[in-house]
Amino acid sequence: MFAFRPFRFMALQTWFWAIAFALSNAALTSGQTPPSVFGYNDFTAQAKIDAEFLPVPDASLAGQELKFLTAQPHLASTPEDHETALYVARKFRAAGLETEIVPYKVLMNQPRKVSIEAHSDDGGLLVIGPSWEHVSDDAFQDDSRIVMPFAGSSGSGDVTGEVVYANYGRLEDFDKLARDGVDLHGKVVLVRYGANFRGVKVYLAEQRGAIGVLIYSDPQDDGYFQGDPYPNGPWRPDTGVQRGSVQYLFKYPGDPETPGVASTLDLPDSARLDPLKTGNQPSIIAIPISSHDAAPILRALKGPTVPKGWQGALPFSYHTGGSGAFTGVTVHLVSDQDYELRIIWDVIGKVRGSQFPQDWVIVGNHRDAWVYGAADPCSGTAAMLEAVHGIGSLLKQGWRPKRTILFASWDAEEEGLIGSTEWVEQHGHALDHAVAYFNTDVAVTGSEFGAEAVPSLKQFLREVAQQVPSPQGGSVYMHWKLDSGSENRESNSLRGSKSGIDNLGEAPVGDLGSGSDYTPFFQHAGVPSTDIGSRGSYGVYHSVFDDYTWFIQNADPTFEYLQEIARVLGLEALHMADADVLPYDYVAYARAINASLDAARHKAAARSIDFSAAQSAGARFMRAAEAARMLQTNLQGKSQAELMRFNTILRQTENQFLSQAGLPNRPWYKHLIYAPGEYSGYAAAVIPGVNEALDARNTDLAAQQLALLTQALNRAAGMLEQAR
Amino acid sequence: MFAFRPFRFMALQTWFWAIAFALSNAALTSGQTPPSVFGYNDFTAQAKIDAEFLPVPDASLAGQELKFLTAQPHLASTPEDHETALYVARKFRAAGLETEIVPYKVLMNQPRKVSIEAHSDDGGLLVIGPSWEHVSDDAFQDDSRIVMPFAGSSGSGDVTGEVVYANYGRLEDFDKLARDGVDLHGKVVLVRYGANFRGVKVYLAEQRGAIGVLIYSDPQDDGYFQGDPYPNGPWRPDTGVQRGSVQYLFKYPGDPETPGVASTLDLPDSARLDPLKTGNQPSIIAIPISSHDAAPILRALKGPTVPKGWQGALPFSYHTGGSGAFTGVTVHLVSDQDYELRIIWDVIGKVRGSQFPQDWVIVGNHRDAWVYGAADPCSGTAAMLEAVHGIGSLLKQGWRPKRTILFASWDAEEEGLIGSTEWVEQHGHALDHAVAYFNTDVAVTGSEFGAEAVPSLKQFLREVAQQVPSPQGGSVYMHWKLDSGSENRESNSLRGSKSGIDNLGEAPVGDLGSGSDYTPFFQHAGVPSTDIGSRGSYGVYHSVFDDYTWFIQNADPTFEYLQEIARVLGLEALHMADADVLPYDYVAYARAINASLDAARHKAAARSIDFSAAQSAGARFMRAAEAARMLQTNLQGKSQAELMRFNTILRQTENQFLSQAGLPNRPWYKHLIYAPGEYSGYAAAVIPGVNEALDARNTDLAAQQLALLTQALNRAAGMLEQAR
Repeated sequence: MFAFRPFRFMALQTWFWAIAFALSNAALTSGQTPPSVFGYNDFTAQAKIDAEFLPVPDASLAGQELKFLTAQPHLASTPEDHETALYVARKFRAAGLETEIVPYKVLMNQPRKVSIEAHSDDGGLLVIGPSWEHVSDDAFQDDSRIVMPFAGSSGSGDVTGEVVYANYGRLEDFDKLARDGVDLHGKVVLVRYGANFRGVKVYLAEQRGAIGVLIYSDPQDDGYFQGDPYPNGPWRPDTGVQRGSVQYLFKYPGDPETPGVASTLDLPDSARLDPLKTGNQPSIIAIPISSHDAAPILRALKGPTVPKGWQGALPFSYHTGGSGAFTGVTVHLVSDQDYELRIIWDVIGKVRGSQFPQDWVIVGNHRDAWVYGAADPCSGTAAMLEAVHGIGSLLKQGWRPKRTILFASWDAEEEGLIGSTEWVEQHGHALDHAVAYFNTDVAVTGSEFGAEAVPSLKQFLREVAQQVPSPQGGSVYMHWKLDSGSENRESNSLRGSKSGIDNLGEAPVGDLGSGSDYTPFFQHAGVPSTDIGSRGSYGVYHSVFDDYTWFIQNADPTFEYLQEIARVLGLEALHMADADVLPYDYVAYARAINASLDAARHKAAARSIDFSAAQSAGARFMRAAEAARMLQTNLQGKSQAELMRFNTILRQTENQFLSQAGLPNRPWYKHLIYAPGEYSGYAAAVIPGVNEALDARNTDLAAQQLALLTQALNRAAGMLEQAR
Repeated sequence: MFAFRPFRFMALQTWFWAIAFALSNAALTSGQTPPSVFGYNDFTAQAKIDAEFLPVPDASLAGQELKFLTAQPHLASTPEDHETALYVARKFRAAGLETEIVPYKVLMNQPRKVSIEAHSDDGGLLVIGPSWEHVSDDAFQDDSRIVMPFAGSSGSGDVTGEVVYANYGRLEDFDKLARDGVDLHGKVVLVRYGANFRGVKVYLAEQRGAIGVLIYSDPQDDGYFQGDPYPNGPWRPDTGVQRGSVQYLFKYPGDPETPGVASTLDLPDSARLDPLKTGNQPSIIAIPISSHDAAPILRALKGPTVPKGWQGALPFSYHTGGSGAFTGVTVHLVSDQDYELRIIWDVIGKVRGSQFPQDWVIVGNHRDAWVYGAADPCSGTAAMLEAVHGIGSLLKQGWRPKRTILFASWDAEEEGLIGSTEWVEQHGHALDHAVAYFNTDVAVTGSEFGAEAVPSLKQFLREVAQQVPSPQGGSVYMHWKLDSGSENRESNSLRGSKSGIDNLGEAPVGDLGSGSDYTPFFQHAGVPSTDIGSRGSYGVYHSVFDDYTWFIQNADPTFEYLQEIARVLGLEALHMADADVLPYDYVAYARAINASLDAARHKAAARSIDFSAAQSAGARFMRAAEAARMLQTNLQGKSQAELMRFNTILRQTENQFLSQAGLPNRPWYKHLIYAPGEYSGYAAAVIPGVNEALDARNTDLAAQQLALLTQALNRAAGMLEQAR
């Protein structure tokens, strides 16, 4: 997973309660009596297929696959990465999938040298690093192939400057420093991980004139303040470093030299752009460090004590460095990055659809890891391989899906969603009628199911989860809903935006922001998407310690949650491939859009922006959605041709939300309803064009974006109105 | 100050803004044109007196007084405490006050020995303490008379037991441990300071079967997490210990052997009760310790990691000790307490009223300190002495107040509000027509004015603050209101209950809970009271470091805020002594009571409790209050006799809120509207009889208490209705 926000632990008593509840609700578990399922005229036949599928994904096999995938570090484009591609391809072929390994040639950096040396006021040496990522006991930590901590997309350079602390490096943090008279020109900004995407921290630091950025993991956010650090618990030890890309993802992901164009092997160099001019690469250097290396720097900083909310969990009072003559600490940073065109390998396995082969259902997960990547991404790959195992078993019995199912193992996600983005860019037009993209990434770190999705697929996901048994007894859905009521649960509000949690009383599904491979599918190509995982305490993200030992100790010792995710992914694919009518719930979509419009109108307040046309369009879309849903639930007597026409309409409706011009200043992002937040990077921005113009107090732009949105809503409504 | 919650720092830019604002509002500053003031027919004459008074309180003299008072440790009943009594008496006499030193003989403990030794699982020594309270540089820390850290009212004993961590020791914390199956019988409970009064922590631990309590100061609450520790800043250093009484204050304060009775020197021993049977003394031992001594214990505890919100700022993950065979730490505690009848000395200075000598206006502050007590309480004493200085200057010009003004320097407040409580118990009937008690305690720790008061005096306090200049320019009121809008301001919501912050758009005044000497006056005797202070970052509370060095470095280097508090206290006394009609705002009181009734009705919800009679009584009281306020603002043509009668009615109205039976299980607390919360100890409980019965799910008791409250409201309304 390219970008991530930590998930907090679940109290034990919630478990006991959940299990007690499950025992009294055993009937819920799964498919004894075929339920009424949205998208199916009659679910009986599908229920039989589901019943064939569900027992096949195997916990113990998933564990073996995980062990193989995590046996060695497999950074994108390395020989070890290629070995995992061959392994996945073998597994795909064994299940009967038409399989190919798809290479791309993309610009990526690997570090030649990264170093940091810090001195205090009086010249005393504070840090010489980076320190060794090491704990008392871990079987994998000493492998010589482990890449030194570095930042993907970092600039190269050798700089010396004074340090200023900028909290999480949010827009408001930088603004606060500016108000306090702290000039960042020529400074090195020290920020902590959390609250936004790391690329945003660097983007803002660069804009404010900083010459370098140090990003560290504060123990308050994913270390001892959360719970016991590894190897005593799941949280980050003091030497653990979060590697990661600082690409300006919110501009565009993928190969920085080829926005919108696939970096196939035959792409001529002349087609490549200068990445520093296209805007998704920092020009300054960025280095991720551990709290162990950050602590002496933070402790030596002078200036005023930090504003409220900036103090972390290191055992002293934090200071910003301030606006005085000397901030208290000077650092000498070296970042020597080897930028090369490197080969990466996606693996694509296909099950050709029997009736609608052009309609693709895509299931995807990346394969490359910063180091071992047990949770991120190998848990996802293992789960996907067991979903493939289940589909393979159906194939061997002669079953064929109506629509084509593709399984994709993406490469170079960590460097900026590169494998998925290049593939999407290569298949642009084919994706116009791809009916869904189902992602998983950090598939398993614990026992709490969570999901984000386009609003039209939130209910679909809930229905699938009702049919999958939980390792805790009862259904996945039952625990998902139960957990979401727990006081200790923060995942969904952390991962998705609040507005994503609609339908009170139902399990919450967040909105899609960014940070994994659904971004090119959904926000660039308009393919309705979901993202799922089974989540728990996870403090070793992007460190060497995200390895097999950590995983079986903390995440899923019996691999039953890998099995659970395999089953959910498999059923998502099966149902979407075989549904009579595409199960898009446009009423939920209309509700989400209209709520966002209301909120934006409220925010616009005194500004002279007329929302009436947009609101009319929203209301029209809602009426069309309600009519369509009536039709979707009354399929009796519809001919095959009528259903095909209806499905085309349903799918084309989503495409109406795309704008060929894209969002202001970031044309790669075509979706007018959802984008990664310009200054958050992870969290979804809803109707981003309008909202971000309002946030920037640009009334003209807001009005223009509102007009585009109004057009899109009218287009979507007009499309749906053709249904009958 | 007996009990205290820390105050957070104020951002610098608020200052700049405030000063800028002040410059453009210079006219506001003070008394150029006599304003219309509630309680005065014509303020002109009073404005002249105020103008004579205000220049007299002197910052530099206040500094000298503070220096004298803080020169040596002066624990209640010690010779050094007696020296400060003589000093205050001299100052009172010099100003022309009729002065007497009033001794009481009261039961108090002093420590002979306090020790703690902790061992881990494997028998290894973790702590042998207490450690020395010490920092790199402080002029006062090495005095041999400094009392070792101990708890007032602690039991004596020599116990050994396993340790369990219980967060703040709130009711919900103990309940959480119980739900998790942690049995506290025979255990030593380790709790952190904060969130409630320390006596409540011990009370609950005793109820749950614990044999001892260790109370420590977590750096999250008043140490490095808040800002730089002393001597680099105002916050608590790691060796700093918060001494304090663990008396069960919420039962009753004062001499534990004489509830309701004054411990005069001639009180026969036969009149004394067994304190362990009267219910305000713990039977178990309690020892306050530093974070330095708590850290190794916390780090060695086993069992599950703590629930959300229990983790503090020490640099490791906290564990509760859990419910297993061994919690991980065993401590051996010795608390050898010398309980003796000891002599204490209140100092009372009187200015006899010329017209209504029986109507007392009392200004009070305690004088005893755990050690040096620079902020707590000497800043209050210095401020009060300068108020006396100002009054003395008026006296020398021949002025006499209409009502009697008393200045009181209480002793043994720290051991349980003893000096003030015994004095109130001695003067019971005389206080029926005491018109106000104005308290200050930790008078100055910084620059932000704050206050708590009975609702009827909140507006009075605001008007006084409008007439006093701030050291920042403008009026005290202006900055008070400005600060209360600042994002960094948390004082009022921390110190008073939310319901105390009525009148949106005005400076907030909290409700009176407990923790200082207003409690016997207000909650036992029904004297309308206020409590004021100028507040800032203050982490050295009840430690050796609350000394003159800390004060001039952190709180008030130029003593201008001591001067400010002297002026506010003085004007409170002058206005209350000379007002034509007593400036009680019963409309605000009725509003507060009716809001509390509504909240209680909401809380009672499904229970079959009929609130209609209480609501009618509340509405009747509101109507009577509105009519009375009309009369209070139209005094023209009223004869002296009519005013006297009206004032008697106004004062007697407050007395109608007293119940001779007192609150359930704590008959000493007579006030039906305000009491210290049974489980908070500090924060005010509003309509406590009803609310605490509801919290305990005791419907019958709630209904009975509601009936008593209804009677009281009807009595109060009936009293006010006699005004004409």
